[in-house]
Amino acid sequence: MTLPELPGEHGRIEVGGRSGGYPVVVGAGLLDAVEEVVQALLPDRSLAIVSDGNVMPLHGGRVAERLRASGLHVTVHDFPAGEASKTRRTWSVLTDALLAEGHGRDAAVIAIGGGVTTDLAGFVAATYMRGIPVVQVPTSYLAMVDASTGGKTGVDVQAGKNLVGAFHRPVAVVADVRTLETLPDAERAEGLVEAVKHGAILDAKHFGALERDLSALLDADPALAAETVLASVTLKAGVVDRDEFEGGYRQILNFGHTLGHAVEAASGYGIGHGSAVAVGMRAEARLGEALGITVGGTAGRLDELLRRLVPLPRSSPSVDEALAYLSADKKVRAGRPRYVLLAEIGRVDEGAGWTHEVPDGAARDALAAVLEGEASTAAPRS
Amino acid sequence: MTLPELPGEHGRIEVGGRSGGYPVVVGAGLLDAVEEVVQALLPDRSLAIVSDGNVMPLHGGRVAERLRASGLHVTVHDFPAGEASKTRRTWSVLTDALLAEGHGRDAAVIAIGGGVTTDLAGFVAATYMRGIPVVQVPTSYLAMVDASTGGKTGVDVQAGKNLVGAFHRPVAVVADVRTLETLPDAERAEGLVEAVKHGAILDAKHFGALERDLSALLDADPALAAETVLASVTLKAGVVDRDEFEGGYRQILNFGHTLGHAVEAASGYGIGHGSAVAVGMRAEARLGEALGITVGGTAGRLDELLRRLVPLPRSSPSVDEALAYLSADKKVRAGRPRYVLLAEIGRVDEGAGWTHEVPDGAARDALAAVLEGEASTAAPRS
Repeated sequence: MTLPELPGEHGRIEVGGRSGGYPVVVGAGLLDAVEEVVQALLPDRSLAIVSDGNVMPLHGGRVAERLRASGLHVTVHDFPAGEASKTRRTWSVLTDALLAEGHGRDAAVIAIGGGVTTDLAGFVAATYMRGIPVVQVPTSYLAMVDASTGGKTGVDVQAGKNLVGAFHRPVAVVADVRTLETLPDAERAEGLVEAVKHGAILDAKHFGALERDLSALLDADPALAAETVLASVTLKAGVVDRDEFEGGYRQILNFGHTLGHAVEAASGYGIGHGSAVAVGMRAEARLGEALGITVGGTAGRLDELLRRLVPLPRSSPSVDEALAYLSADKKVRAGRPRYVLLAEIGRVDEGAGWTHEVPDGAARDALAAVLEGEASTAAPRS
Repeated sequence: MTLPELPGEHGRIEVGGRSGGYPVVVGAGLLDAVEEVVQALLPDRSLAIVSDGNVMPLHGGRVAERLRASGLHVTVHDFPAGEASKTRRTWSVLTDALLAEGHGRDAAVIAIGGGVTTDLAGFVAATYMRGIPVVQVPTSYLAMVDASTGGKTGVDVQAGKNLVGAFHRPVAVVADVRTLETLPDAERAEGLVEAVKHGAILDAKHFGALERDLSALLDADPALAAETVLASVTLKAGVVDRDEFEGGYRQILNFGHTLGHAVEAASGYGIGHGSAVAVGMRAEARLGEALGITVGGTAGRLDELLRRLVPLPRSSPSVDEALAYLSADKKVRAGRPRYVLLAEIGRVDEGAGWTHEVPDGAARDALAAVLEGEASTAAPRS
């Protein structure tokens, strides 16, 4: 089955990989085309729309109405917005709600929302009667450029984020950049951090475009947003296609995430993922420069772009607190944290299997330079 | 990586399918060869052994000792024996226990036990950090011939059995028929029902061998048990390879399960799966004969073999109670139950996509003939 061109479509890419490909369609006004996607790819299926309590009234209800108007059996399921809902408990409640509605193995899930929704609803679909199809309809930059591509689904547990989950590829991703207009400014900024990461590890031209267009992107300019999302997804898809199940090359997507996750976890997840990864990228660029792996000036360019995007989190943990969390990080292998390091903007150093072990002191110094070096220039604590 | 021949190996088959193949090795004394499997297929991984409270002291502890003796990092995790443990709750507890032990993405699960353990531990592995490898070490006929092959994992929920789960193929299945000696007689009999099913739908010769060797198999004769398990797994693997994700042909494995599940569910799962499926196969053979699809005498031959194996459950639900559950069965499509019907012993009728819709009255009559026709000959209710 192929998907016809959708009204409002700006472009699409086919994400491949050995489990079979799926389209990521980007455009303005695509929410109204979800019906066409369903008719083309999921005929005769009952549908369960999953959104959080913010997105359901903004977008989910409208999609449900249109689908119902064309005679489809549609149920809607919302959950309280926020990362705190991304739990086994919410997953159970949603699963039981779908079961109570009588959805069988011939049902499909439509996930409409940000990264929490795409991860959580994706995990519901992955495990519902051993797997039913999901259409991902991301409504944030983060979900558009990152969470909905690659098939990662999951929930957080006490021991850490995303530690329970499954790989479950969507049948399609429908990214309507008009939904970005309803997003709080800070969330737009947070999400663009992942686009910066894709440029930093893979494409200097994309990085340059972000430097040039940042203000318009923060204002959710539809044409530029569609262009940026499409470019960023294309870059990520190239990585995922080469290494679908995270054996090796895909680890380059973890640039900024070793220290970023540590900062995020040490804050008790009080600071945003994008802000934490921004700190992580800046610190890991410094780390690479200090080790002579990353070309000089790289950290400075990342600093400049990322400081325009997200301020240093006011409630940042201390360097010691962050490093204490590193040993609990799931990306730790055999007891030693590993780092993805840039060669330069747009290119990752191959290292040993795309990662490096580094001296503890070097990691500490790099993180301190970001967290403490700027303390005086950061906004005062509230 | 290939697996060398194991000490005590009787034979093996390679289960294929598009997600990559894995060996199912059958033999006597293979528990002592789990270490060789791990060294060959899972080098450098930390290991979590999962068993129930009965099997851990019988077999799991011994496997753990041997693995530890060769210097591997091994943790052991047991849970209360029984279907009542096959829940999201136990899955959560086991997952958290593995996390607390510090197992990372480079860990693997060794599931040692019956179908509850292989399903539950398989689901833990399927969802642990989005999937880690599992070695299935089935210790019951049911798990050997059925549960551990095909990659089905999952748990029961209030709404029904196996409604939450994932497809997650093991890296290897190690079936040690010596473990059958420690199994209660009734469980050996229950498990052989699935072997009878494989013969009934796919291979008259296998069916004939079961008729001939039944007593010795019930006594767990090692050579005959190994032969039977190998033959039965080979049949099932042929089906799974042709249709890994249950789109069509794989449905033939549901022979006896439409009415069988209804009987099992209506009993509140008070009667064994094998006993329920035995009722289902006998009724569905009658159903096929009544509709002129199944050759005459088929039901009689199934009756004779299955009555030697498992008695009619003393706490069987009524026909009405069983049929009331049919509409809740997950195999229902578009509101109508569908049936796999035999052409003859050893061959399924193709029907429409391997299944048939049948008149409600015909299903009722067939089930009544089994449940009520024998009421007078069944053992008295206790």
